[in-house]
Amino acid sequence: MELNYDKLGNGLVPAIAQDYKTGEILMLAFMNKEAFEKTVETKKATYYSRSRNKLWVKGESSGNIQEVKDILIDCDNDAVLLKINQIGDAACHTGFNTCFYRTANSSNELEITGRKIFNPEDVYKK
Amino acid sequence: MELNYDKLGNGLVPAIAQDYKTGEILMLAFMNKEAFEKTVETKKATYYSRSRNKLWVKGESSGNIQEVKDILIDCDNDAVLLKINQIGDAACHTGFNTCFYRTANSSNELEITGRKIFNPEDVYKK
Repeated sequence: MELNYDKLGNGLVPAIAQDYKTGEILMLAFMNKEAFEKTVETKKATYYSRSRNKLWVKGESSGNIQEVKDILIDCDNDAVLLKINQIGDAACHTGFNTCFYRTANSSNELEITGRKIFNPEDVYKK
Repeated sequence: MELNYDKLGNGLVPAIAQDYKTGEILMLAFMNKEAFEKTVETKKATYYSRSRNKLWVKGESSGNIQEVKDILIDCDNDAVLLKINQIGDAACHTGFNTCFYRTANSSNELEITGRKIFNPEDVYKK
């Protein structure tokens, strides 16, 4: 199960997290080789944070970890799909269930269509 | 509805295509600004082909176009989720219904879990 990390030019591949029960897309993040291997080994979704330049075990701050149920790879080995169990029912740091909580309406303006699960100020305390 | 095209360093954002009825993830590709705007305008999924360095209306060769039903944007405006109607029932150039047609088994070997819809040799004739 070898991925192609060369396509984007930064050693990363995109990874989609999908709720394994509802099929809802929860987030899209990136993995380097280490993050992918750690995800396979630990069965906890682990990404590479481009802003912090380090491995990022999803939920390490919020407690909302992602238990990996299935790992799928795309046809040209440069994208990952994780079917996950989202602990805490919220994947997004904004407190919504999904990072894709906004949908374009007929005027192409974004409307909130996700579900707010928690208040970020309560969870990410200083 | 402005996206952030600067994060990856190549002017692209990842875009997920999800079957709007079944919730199945069909593919992940990339869009530049022009591809995104064309997708919004035409309601046909249009990506940027990194191998051909040009806009790519999905299905222009195979006929398997993607009718866009909904466009969702993620929390930091750097990823797109398209809910689509996949004409021809197959999104992948390999002839499978989804590009994510392989799933890692308990030995971390990839097994085919997708459905074969067409024979690529019949569809992409020389």
